[in-house]
Amino acid sequence: MADQTPLRVALIGTAFMGAAHSQAWRTAPRFFDLPREPEMALLVGRSADTTAAQATKLGWQEWSTDWREAVSRDDIDVIDICTPGDTHVEIALAALAAGKHVLCEKPLANSVAEAVAMADAAEQAAQSGVLSMCGFSYRRTPALALARRFIAEGRLGAIRHVRADYLQDWLSDPAAPLSWRLDKAKAGSGALGDIGAHSIDTAQWLTGESITEVSATLRTFVTERPQRGAAAGLGGVADPDAARGPVTVDDAMAFTATFSGGALGVFEATRMATGRRNANRIEINGESGSIAFDFERMNELEYFDGRGTDPEAEGFRRIVVTDPVHPYVANWWPTGHGLGYEHLFTHQMVDFVTAIGAGTAPSPGFGEALDVQRVLAAVEASAKARSQTTPVERRTA
Amino acid sequence: MADQTPLRVALIGTAFMGAAHSQAWRTAPRFFDLPREPEMALLVGRSADTTAAQATKLGWQEWSTDWREAVSRDDIDVIDICTPGDTHVEIALAALAAGKHVLCEKPLANSVAEAVAMADAAEQAAQSGVLSMCGFSYRRTPALALARRFIAEGRLGAIRHVRADYLQDWLSDPAAPLSWRLDKAKAGSGALGDIGAHSIDTAQWLTGESITEVSATLRTFVTERPQRGAAAGLGGVADPDAARGPVTVDDAMAFTATFSGGALGVFEATRMATGRRNANRIEINGESGSIAFDFERMNELEYFDGRGTDPEAEGFRRIVVTDPVHPYVANWWPTGHGLGYEHLFTHQMVDFVTAIGAGTAPSPGFGEALDVQRVLAAVEASAKARSQTTPVERRTA
Amino acid sequence: MADQTPLRVALIGTAFMGAAHSQAWRTAPRFFDLPREPEMALLVGRSADTTAAQATKLGWQEWSTDWREAVSRDDIDVIDICTPGDTHVEIALAALAAGKHVLCEKPLANSVAEAVAMADAAEQAAQSGVLSMCGFSYRRTPALALARRFIAEGRLGAIRHVRADYLQDWLSDPAAPLSWRLDKAKAGSGALGDIGAHSIDTAQWLTGESITEVSATLRTFVTERPQRGAAAGLGGVADPDAARGPVTVDDAMAFTATFSGGALGVFEATRMATGRRNANRIEINGESGSIAFDFERMNELEYFDGRGTDPEAEGFRRIVVTDPVHPYVANWWPTGHGLGYEHLFTHQMVDFVTAIGAGTAPSPGFGEALDVQRVLAAVEASAKARSQTTPVERRTA
Amino acid sequence: MADQTPLRVALIGTAFMGAAHSQAWRTAPRFFDLPREPEMALLVGRSADTTAAQATKLGWQEWSTDWREAVSRDDIDVIDICTPGDTHVEIALAALAAGKHVLCEKPLANSVAEAVAMADAAEQAAQSGVLSMCGFSYRRTPALALARRFIAEGRLGAIRHVRADYLQDWLSDPAAPLSWRLDKAKAGSGALGDIGAHSIDTAQWLTGESITEVSATLRTFVTERPQRGAAAGLGGVADPDAARGPVTVDDAMAFTATFSGGALGVFEATRMATGRRNANRIEINGESGSIAFDFERMNELEYFDGRGTDPEAEGFRRIVVTDPVHPYVANWWPTGHGLGYEHLFTHQMVDFVTAIGAGTAPSPGFGEALDVQRVLAAVEASAKARSQTTPVERRTA
Repeated sequence: MADQTPLRVALIGTAFMGAAHSQAWRTAPRFFDLPREPEMALLVGRSADTTAAQATKLGWQEWSTDWREAVSRDDIDVIDICTPGDTHVEIALAALAAGKHVLCEKPLANSVAEAVAMADAAEQAAQSGVLSMCGFSYRRTPALALARRFIAEGRLGAIRHVRADYLQDWLSDPAAPLSWRLDKAKAGSGALGDIGAHSIDTAQWLTGESITEVSATLRTFVTERPQRGAAAGLGGVADPDAARGPVTVDDAMAFTATFSGGALGVFEATRMATGRRNANRIEINGESGSIAFDFERMNELEYFDGRGTDPEAEGFRRIVVTDPVHPYVANWWPTGHGLGYEHLFTHQMVDFVTAIGAGTAPSPGFGEALDVQRVLAAVEASAKARSQTTPVERRTA
Repeated sequence: MADQTPLRVALIGTAFMGAAHSQAWRTAPRFFDLPREPEMALLVGRSADTTAAQATKLGWQEWSTDWREAVSRDDIDVIDICTPGDTHVEIALAALAAGKHVLCEKPLANSVAEAVAMADAAEQAAQSGVLSMCGFSYRRTPALALARRFIAEGRLGAIRHVRADYLQDWLSDPAAPLSWRLDKAKAGSGALGDIGAHSIDTAQWLTGESITEVSATLRTFVTERPQRGAAAGLGGVADPDAARGPVTVDDAMAFTATFSGGALGVFEATRMATGRRNANRIEINGESGSIAFDFERMNELEYFDGRGTDPEAEGFRRIVVTDPVHPYVANWWPTGHGLGYEHLFTHQMVDFVTAIGAGTAPSPGFGEALDVQRVLAAVEASAKARSQTTPVERRTA
Repeated sequence: MADQTPLRVALIGTAFMGAAHSQAWRTAPRFFDLPREPEMALLVGRSADTTAAQATKLGWQEWSTDWREAVSRDDIDVIDICTPGDTHVEIALAALAAGKHVLCEKPLANSVAEAVAMADAAEQAAQSGVLSMCGFSYRRTPALALARRFIAEGRLGAIRHVRADYLQDWLSDPAAPLSWRLDKAKAGSGALGDIGAHSIDTAQWLTGESITEVSATLRTFVTERPQRGAAAGLGGVADPDAARGPVTVDDAMAFTATFSGGALGVFEATRMATGRRNANRIEINGESGSIAFDFERMNELEYFDGRGTDPEAEGFRRIVVTDPVHPYVANWWPTGHGLGYEHLFTHQMVDFVTAIGAGTAPSPGFGEALDVQRVLAAVEASAKARSQTTPVERRTA
Repeated sequence: MADQTPLRVALIGTAFMGAAHSQAWRTAPRFFDLPREPEMALLVGRSADTTAAQATKLGWQEWSTDWREAVSRDDIDVIDICTPGDTHVEIALAALAAGKHVLCEKPLANSVAEAVAMADAAEQAAQSGVLSMCGFSYRRTPALALARRFIAEGRLGAIRHVRADYLQDWLSDPAAPLSWRLDKAKAGSGALGDIGAHSIDTAQWLTGESITEVSATLRTFVTERPQRGAAAGLGGVADPDAARGPVTVDDAMAFTATFSGGALGVFEATRMATGRRNANRIEINGESGSIAFDFERMNELEYFDGRGTDPEAEGFRRIVVTDPVHPYVANWWPTGHGLGYEHLFTHQMVDFVTAIGAGTAPSPGFGEALDVQRVLAAVEASAKARSQTTPVERRTA
């Protein structure tokens, strides 16, 4: 008989991602039938003041400044990790060891070594029914889930081109402040891991193919920035009197790639594409069709059917992905009443809790996230080697 | 000293609108600072089974099948009316008389007479601090709130054209079932009151002008439909064995209008525009600028600055209305991470509760909603009189 | 045996339309196989200096300031009328009487009476093989010709909605000068006849249905303007020292309409839609599909297939109408290499000369153009009668 | 005193490009004031039958099957080379030696060595007033010329990103035939030289910067194709009974690049992007602004002004580049009446003849075209060297 006790969650992280996950935990059971009801049990942050205030604001029962408390408590079932990348491995390993299900934000870790440790631990934990997932939330966009369905159905035929550019502009201004996202020790990398990782995961997931080799470039346009004053948006507000510090990550990255099925990939990620707010774009061309997507229009999928059945009516269709026939949509509003960014996280919680209920591995597991990490590593290696084509290491079978 | 006790809400209605309001009541205090904390106290529906299930699902503390209970209980502060239009007047009058703040879905009523009674009662209740608002939720779209700001700032100059078409297609199929929305006794009218009312309110609110006269047409393309089997989407699913019943409302309406400032309005609303899912579109042209909006891309506003400062760079701008400088947005996600349909209701609750906290009249009050009702009445009168230009009755000063 | 002698053309009018027709006469035989080779024989204008200069510039063999010369010369086969509307009837009647084929710019005339005279004369001339056509050039847009094909094939099913707005902005500025287009004596009407006539013809032609009644409004926002100094663009440049004169035509018009098949039409035309340069837009919704078009993107047609064969992939397709399978396109460039405004006129000449070669009636003949004129007259009558629904007079069978 | 004799042109090549150039020579003097009137004197092709027919069709006074005749005749002023790339060098050198002005289609040659010879010859010929230009026609698109103006004015600030993808799909189908464009001996390369060369030239011209190094990949997805039967479109129609032959050029290419000013470039070109007909797209992001362009909407430029003067109204503007204030446009139609593909060539002739009249060097001269050729060579070299970053050789100062 299925376990129907509440699923008590501890969330580690109180900033942007923490808020997004909180809203998702709160909302998921109101619109979807979940095998277990999530309870927002414990919020963990570094500062007592901030954490207490956020726990009230975001609706958590208790709060703590010690993540080890969350891991060690018997009444916690899930550890949800929304901290900077340098802390993922320690928390995740402890949580898995303690038998907690783990949801960990992306990128999985700041190095392949850490990611391997996490994937190994996750694989072992899974033996005893302890499950883990990495937060590549864009997979939960209905339009992208529909694209994946189309590709899996063979509508596009053999895939030839993947063209993914993730464009933001919150660092265009050289006066934008340093934040932890610009510190390699904390963030691991810049645009590469923060947003490029999303494109890599999305591309591999959509096509069902792996990136086998890359030729890459990293670029830092602004090498020094003022220290951050207050928190605001992705990067905060600069303190005008503060000293300047070095930017130790990439502002932008670009690479070409080969996929396991032979497709040619072109990837780009930047936080300096003036005017592009969150243009997470991907286009895939196959022998008999194409899809195109831009997160700035997240409720739409462009689809071209080139199978030749109606030649004079061929054209990219703008599918408004808000119909009950579309992934995730039936549980929401009537057709045409779109979703927003936060609903990606709601869907993520639905998929995670559903997997926990069924006792099956959620996707992407840490192994899949490690695959992304290996691409990130190959990108960095290629960029250091004058863009020479560099193979992506793969797990041995 | 301000009243900081919780604001206990009773919601009447368990269907689409009830779900939207529930999510809004739940979410508003998590992202906005409200003067009083809403409590989801009581859900009222007609069927005990449905209401009990929905109360659990949507997160209400108690449930009832008698709206009079909600009105008479001392521990309820707000009555939120999400029922079909024929019931609005009775519930609202009782609630106001009982000293409850009232939020009432649009259109305010099914006739001008009812709306007058409601506006009068609201005006009287306001004397003793009892407040009321009508749910023209599209006003809470950040892009439209930005458009209103632009117009109020004089960017567009004198307004010459208002072009509003609200296009849906869930009745395109003649086999789509009868629902209460197609029954004049319940709904008052069809596309006119259901979606056209939104366009009318939006147009008057954006321009700050009133519609003074109209020349109108109503059309019913499919005059009989099968009875509804199950609830689903806006109209439900037809029961194939059921008898057919008459459609007693309009499928589509169109009218031209004159605004108090001289602008020419062209309005259209239909539920049979095949392929348009929820295209609530409005374009306004002024002497020195224009705005255009389509709810299918709710996070965008098109704006044309024709003030002549940069002639070779003139063009409609696609403003991605997701920046902290934009209305409502600072409380949400980083720039470029858009909102969805449900957030209109969240904003509505924020504005309503803020007004209650401040003891000021929320907008649109029942008087403004009556203004819309009078336009609806003029449209119906003109349509009956071979589209002859028909003045819109106005409140005497 | 077919007449293969050159087809000698006299063009009356040296301004914008004259230039467009000249380029079309020159280009048509270079890309299409025509039964007779057009010869640009004679250009006729009012001023000797201008006409002589334009004849050289535009490539005409001879020039004249007397249109009667063109009509009376034996070596002229075609009279192409590009003058203001007040002169059409006299020239056309004389030309037909002289046995010349006639191509006449739209609107056909400045009144129904004139148009009737022209249609009657054309019908009589046709008996002896003298052919005539009216210049509703937008019919020659490949995207619209494709739309017509789709509708004729029944893809859209029964037509329910026609939504046509033709938006320009060259009169937005109150300082824009008076030109002949603002003088009722010359132009007949304003936006109504100049651009609204295009929408009316396009709508009737696309649907294959007639407008049977209208409810209309005309509006003049700027009632006085400075006299024109120099020619430039559509309206010329104002002479700042000149006196102001009255605008005697409409700046904008709007009407609702009923089509012979029951569809509801909404039409609008204005020259004061700030930011819309030449947005000749039309959308048609049928029971099972829709098309949408905007001349600002003239190489594209949006098409929605609602016939239910692929529900999750439904969406408006952006057809890039540049493929050899599309109307007119095979004679031009490779797929994706679009056409421009002038090619409408090239296609018009192709269709006209092809009809002359075949001895068959070109379309739209003067009778069809008279149908448009009758709609214009009904619009004006309704506008005068407080928008009362006004039937469109029809030819008796 | 300026030479005002006619400018007699010989055109070599009778296919797609020959037709485009013919129409441009014919049209240019009708809309622009040229210092000398072009005369379409001589058409040269390989087959007598085809050439004779095309001369008549396209409007040339005489025809020949020997390009040496064109070069050696005294009554020819301009040699216009529209043949496959393997023949450019021989014809151009002979023409320059004979004192003819030369317009040569792109890419300039099939190798750097040939291009160097041509650039050297052009430089020497220029000493005696013999001028030459390479046909990078996309520079003549009004929208792109406007983009260049914006960048030159400093609106975008320092350029950081260039993102150019030129996407076609006429080879998506593996059954599409072999044509000379797929034969390395004739075409030099595939997508790289045919369309990628356009992107390279456009990017360098728009930014005013040079590509200094590249990391590149070439890909051939379909390695064998059936022989061509008949000519049609870009590639012709396959002969189903014919033998298959090898494709010896690239189907697609991609490279990252560094510009002389530090910008990061990402380039892609393919003829297998199913559904993209002629999507010659480029986006450039600078510190304070961006532009974006897609040739499928050639009359539009997207422009983002990020200079901070109106933060809440920031957004990409869709400039309809059809106004007299825009480059090339004043000589054409009223605002909003767009141009087509062929007008690029008209503008090219205008610029070329204007330069000849003024005795100044037209741009791009063969030296600039050699710069593009050197990038093509670096791309090929990098692709052979496992994408290793490869410097672009530059002319010594």
